[in-house]
Amino acid sequence: MRIRVVNPNTSRAMTDTIERCARAVAGPGTLLDAVTSEMGPASIESHYDEALSVPGLLAAIRRGEAEGVDGYVLACFGDPGLDAARELAGGPVIGIAEAAMRTAAHLGRGFSVVTTLGRTVGRAADLAERYGMRRFCRGIHACEIPVLALDSDPDAREIVTEACREAVEADRSDAIVLGCAGMADLSAQVRAKVGVPVVDGVAAATLTVQSLLTLGLRKSGRGEFAAPPPKPFTGSLRSFGT
Amino acid sequence: MRIRVVNPNTSRAMTDTIERCARAVAGPGTLLDAVTSEMGPASIESHYDEALSVPGLLAAIRRGEAEGVDGYVLACFGDPGLDAARELAGGPVIGIAEAAMRTAAHLGRGFSVVTTLGRTVGRAADLAERYGMRRFCRGIHACEIPVLALDSDPDAREIVTEACREAVEADRSDAIVLGCAGMADLSAQVRAKVGVPVVDGVAAATLTVQSLLTLGLRKSGRGEFAAPPPKPFTGSLRSFGT
Amino acid sequence: MRIRVVNPNTSRAMTDTIERCARAVAGPGTLLDAVTSEMGPASIESHYDEALSVPGLLAAIRRGEAEGVDGYVLACFGDPGLDAARELAGGPVIGIAEAAMRTAAHLGRGFSVVTTLGRTVGRAADLAERYGMRRFCRGIHACEIPVLALDSDPDAREIVTEACREAVEADRSDAIVLGCAGMADLSAQVRAKVGVPVVDGVAAATLTVQSLLTLGLRKSGRGEFAAPPPKPFTGSLRSFGT
Amino acid sequence: MRIRVVNPNTSRAMTDTIERCARAVAGPGTLLDAVTSEMGPASIESHYDEALSVPGLLAAIRRGEAEGVDGYVLACFGDPGLDAARELAGGPVIGIAEAAMRTAAHLGRGFSVVTTLGRTVGRAADLAERYGMRRFCRGIHACEIPVLALDSDPDAREIVTEACREAVEADRSDAIVLGCAGMADLSAQVRAKVGVPVVDGVAAATLTVQSLLTLGLRKSGRGEFAAPPPKPFTGSLRSFGT
Amino acid sequence: MRIRVVNPNTSRAMTDTIERCARAVAGPGTLLDAVTSEMGPASIESHYDEALSVPGLLAAIRRGEAEGVDGYVLACFGDPGLDAARELAGGPVIGIAEAAMRTAAHLGRGFSVVTTLGRTVGRAADLAERYGMRRFCRGIHACEIPVLALDSDPDAREIVTEACREAVEADRSDAIVLGCAGMADLSAQVRAKVGVPVVDGVAAATLTVQSLLTLGLRKSGRGEFAAPPPKPFTGSLRSFGT
Amino acid sequence: MRIRVVNPNTSRAMTDTIERCARAVAGPGTLLDAVTSEMGPASIESHYDEALSVPGLLAAIRRGEAEGVDGYVLACFGDPGLDAARELAGGPVIGIAEAAMRTAAHLGRGFSVVTTLGRTVGRAADLAERYGMRRFCRGIHACEIPVLALDSDPDAREIVTEACREAVEADRSDAIVLGCAGMADLSAQVRAKVGVPVVDGVAAATLTVQSLLTLGLRKSGRGEFAAPPPKPFTGSLRSFGT
Repeated sequence: MRIRVVNPNTSRAMTDTIERCARAVAGPGTLLDAVTSEMGPASIESHYDEALSVPGLLAAIRRGEAEGVDGYVLACFGDPGLDAARELAGGPVIGIAEAAMRTAAHLGRGFSVVTTLGRTVGRAADLAERYGMRRFCRGIHACEIPVLALDSDPDAREIVTEACREAVEADRSDAIVLGCAGMADLSAQVRAKVGVPVVDGVAAATLTVQSLLTLGLRKSGRGEFAAPPPKPFTGSLRSFGT
Repeated sequence: MRIRVVNPNTSRAMTDTIERCARAVAGPGTLLDAVTSEMGPASIESHYDEALSVPGLLAAIRRGEAEGVDGYVLACFGDPGLDAARELAGGPVIGIAEAAMRTAAHLGRGFSVVTTLGRTVGRAADLAERYGMRRFCRGIHACEIPVLALDSDPDAREIVTEACREAVEADRSDAIVLGCAGMADLSAQVRAKVGVPVVDGVAAATLTVQSLLTLGLRKSGRGEFAAPPPKPFTGSLRSFGT
Repeated sequence: MRIRVVNPNTSRAMTDTIERCARAVAGPGTLLDAVTSEMGPASIESHYDEALSVPGLLAAIRRGEAEGVDGYVLACFGDPGLDAARELAGGPVIGIAEAAMRTAAHLGRGFSVVTTLGRTVGRAADLAERYGMRRFCRGIHACEIPVLALDSDPDAREIVTEACREAVEADRSDAIVLGCAGMADLSAQVRAKVGVPVVDGVAAATLTVQSLLTLGLRKSGRGEFAAPPPKPFTGSLRSFGT
Repeated sequence: MRIRVVNPNTSRAMTDTIERCARAVAGPGTLLDAVTSEMGPASIESHYDEALSVPGLLAAIRRGEAEGVDGYVLACFGDPGLDAARELAGGPVIGIAEAAMRTAAHLGRGFSVVTTLGRTVGRAADLAERYGMRRFCRGIHACEIPVLALDSDPDAREIVTEACREAVEADRSDAIVLGCAGMADLSAQVRAKVGVPVVDGVAAATLTVQSLLTLGLRKSGRGEFAAPPPKPFTGSLRSFGT
Repeated sequence: MRIRVVNPNTSRAMTDTIERCARAVAGPGTLLDAVTSEMGPASIESHYDEALSVPGLLAAIRRGEAEGVDGYVLACFGDPGLDAARELAGGPVIGIAEAAMRTAAHLGRGFSVVTTLGRTVGRAADLAERYGMRRFCRGIHACEIPVLALDSDPDAREIVTEACREAVEADRSDAIVLGCAGMADLSAQVRAKVGVPVVDGVAAATLTVQSLLTLGLRKSGRGEFAAPPPKPFTGSLRSFGT
Repeated sequence: MRIRVVNPNTSRAMTDTIERCARAVAGPGTLLDAVTSEMGPASIESHYDEALSVPGLLAAIRRGEAEGVDGYVLACFGDPGLDAARELAGGPVIGIAEAAMRTAAHLGRGFSVVTTLGRTVGRAADLAERYGMRRFCRGIHACEIPVLALDSDPDAREIVTEACREAVEADRSDAIVLGCAGMADLSAQVRAKVGVPVVDGVAAATLTVQSLLTLGLRKSGRGEFAAPPPKPFTGSLRSFGT
């Protein structure tokens, strides 16, 4: 069983963290690797970044299909390009927001999301709505740390942890969802300090893909998520056409 | 990691089927067993049956806690007593409707539920609403086979399969959710005949529990799902008090 | 016209209060009595308590049917076992949360619920959703008084009244719904002090049952709420089977 | 206790029927009368009719207040002018759509509305939404009989009954709501033929008002439903000003 | 292209302001005038006022139809009588709440409404729900200035502006919707001081009507919004009948 | 006032049709042109196509900003990249699905969407939900004509017209929304044959942009839709970075 985690930004250090967190939970029979997108933004902090991360992500899926990968994790909390990736892949493709929210919904009446910049809160709210999680998602909170500073800023862990504590208090929630792939290695620390379960989407999505593969559940191959109809593409995206 | 599947009706043959289907997907490090409720109805086909299955289910959870069980699957599609069971258990308790619907929501835009008797359709609709699955659940269809006849009636498999085919057609759905624990061993056959992915809740819930345990996610132990406050109980339920 | 109020906990003092409040509003042609459950928890303060109050409640309904009772009030704000009780009874069965919320919805744009323990807030929210009252229910507030302390704690009335005052202020609501059968005799005092109408579910449900009987409205007897299919029951719940 | 039923159209024959149906259910201590609007349309079959029925309705409420009436029923299924009437009256004002839908919601999982002209279906849907009844209202069906023809057309009763039968079949509903005050005397016949409970809003609203009065529930007198601020009115509505 | 703005209260000074604001945005080919209602309340500050403004409004529409007006703006934020006006008019009729909210929904994730008296907040909330704007409308705030004082009170502009500033802060909204036709000439000042786009419904509705006329979009003339069926009217509303 | 319509697919013939339809409704003071995307798919018929149309679209917006364009229409019914385009542009950016649905919502109680391929129905449903149009959108119907065949297939106009007729019948809707930019020139024909108003999103969006510019409404420039934070981009999308 081959699972590939795709980091849709181009920062390899972040891919390394993500890969470590995914491997920590994958089962013994699972071959797991993580790849970094080869084109697009260094981090995803706006709708613009997110939209422009999708071609690189889709290219990674296409390579994965050629290499026999069975399922994919999209390791960005905006779940960029999820529908398009599902058309392309034969097996499951799971976004970390989707997996984290649905996992957290099993842990009590409601969860709080803690994310990076305030400008991404709207996207997280859209996803909560789309995934049917509105009644479980009690609040989405930003700690105003840029994505790449999660790694480089020595105060970042403390700030995120404090934001989680405040979120649980304000929302009276039963769990925290970490709203950025770059927070994947913070869950143990936050849980220890805040005292509620903390869901990292990278780990959650890895197990969701693994479970779907174990269950033998693949898309039906017809309808909305069938392979996209072939057609010519133009310009610097020419290689995406057929 | 010890996972226990609780069959909240008192029919041991059904427990055997359930156990087999759960074991087929559990990971190598998982000790899984299934138990039959020791009090209550022989099958669950009404709100009355469901309500009266809960004491036996809670007794089974309490025994499980004493024996060091880490997580539980509630193997009835009405997810009876789920909130109460969560108060009692230290680890995750997952209902098969909850797990099946959330799993199916990863497979496309919408799923159809196929269940036993028409009178249980309302309960399934309530659960879809409660789990945030209303936008994914495109229809709930009854095949009017009593629960225990799934095993004894030689035509049952054919009737369920045909109901699934019609449901997918009518709802234009991407997946089937089997709406009864007693259908757990039908998923391969239905998938082969209907051509869309088929989710059995017993298997789905087993992997959901296993994933939550792997992720180290346990309820926070405070608030709504903390252990119930101790108090005296009266009459034939006296043993449930403290 | 015979109406029976069922107190699903086993505390007779509370039944007495409930009966007095119900009788105070019943019409001259109505024979009303209240009964105490014969098995289950002394008070209902958790999902566990609530689930385990249902068998005693259903036994009381069954006795009522044998004695020719025409309609029932379920006197616990969690409306435990409502669907099951409706299958069992030929006439109307009304929960006090259901009746109180629908009554309060006639009084303005929105109401606040004031209940006992914070851990029961989630259940009240589920019921508001289920009864279509989400747009009317502006807040659910706990005063952290255990159910039986409503009677025994000399400060309880003052604390509940103050919680109601704060709730109306915070929610800008037009009415209060008292969120516990044990608060039934507080409505006059709260109304006097807070200055908005106060709905006690016991009285509201009594009149709802009486109205349904006057209107000749009984369930249709087919479909979801028809009598439950007969079947054997096992163990200490054996007597519930047929 | 004085309850007045206001027929907001100007057809006295319809008022007579309405009054008879309301009296049939009112309690022994209730003084009930019905009045006909003194200005406006002969029947209410459009948004235009409905809007123009409101001044006559409000004039009737004002007269009622001067005469010491305690509560009011608005006897048109569009519940015209309900919010304005509530500002004007000290006691409860209940629309028949509101009362009928909330009453029917106690009878099972869902009801069907059967109304007169197809062009009024939209208004009924708006009201179902507003009253939180969307999940209970399974369908709204027109029988295309003008309001006044309910009385004059000898085939009307048969056509309405048949529409009810078809509605229950199509919607798999547990009850019928009669969607016009002019159908008030049809409920027994429809119930006998269709076999599900049938709710006439005139009777249901009468008992709702009587119950609110028995419970001593009056609006708080502040906020949105306080008496309207006094001001001059112009033209043929001059008398509505102060 | 003839567009008429109808002020449904009877205050001519307010009509003048409204007309100026509407003219400022109308295109060169648009003939625009504004008329004052000839019967009803001097201002609209309650459900009562609003209901009683509708006959005057409908009379104005009828005169407009006779004079060949192509489309109408209803210049009161309660959008009084909108459905009835649409039945009467052959061309588009647009309320200022409807136009303002839909326009503001194009400007970001959410808007705040700032209105006059607190007692009108409920009506604005009803309209937001009806127009599908609930997810865009982040708050409705009253500044407790009576409608006519917007013009006469020298502090009014400052108070409204400050209420807008606080609303944007509290709701984290992207735009302001001015919740009263009498605020039409405040938009530039508020925008300058608060720093977010400010939508005046009079101007927005004028351009919505103009756009619908340019697109050749008129109601279909059948179904719910067809001309109301002719019938006799009684009393001082006699002239509305046929 | 300069408005640019961006065709996010690379088919110039379609751009010509779109430009003609937009020009037909633009006001005399509006300079309008249409541009074709320079990279991406020849037509947009899948999530994959849509995602890969976004870079070309964003490049067109960036060029427009450099050239002093005031506002933009996104001429694809999937409204691709709308949020990202709004971050990039100083003035309004309006999608044709957004404009068409909001315009149609003014025309009655509900509309039907008629689109090209069945696989795009899900996207249209997502947009209806996102724009608050769920209660107005009564159905989304595919006519199974590929986008470019709308122009090349001689039967296409007839098939679309027939699909519109069937949609209005099935949904009992008051208007049609044409669900593809390639249908822009079909609205007159469909209206003539089906007898309800028909909304072409290209024309509707053009007037929406023009109205927003006339009203002086531009995004606030802070928060979610502020200019995206600058950062390096990699690979063939390098030029999108800073």
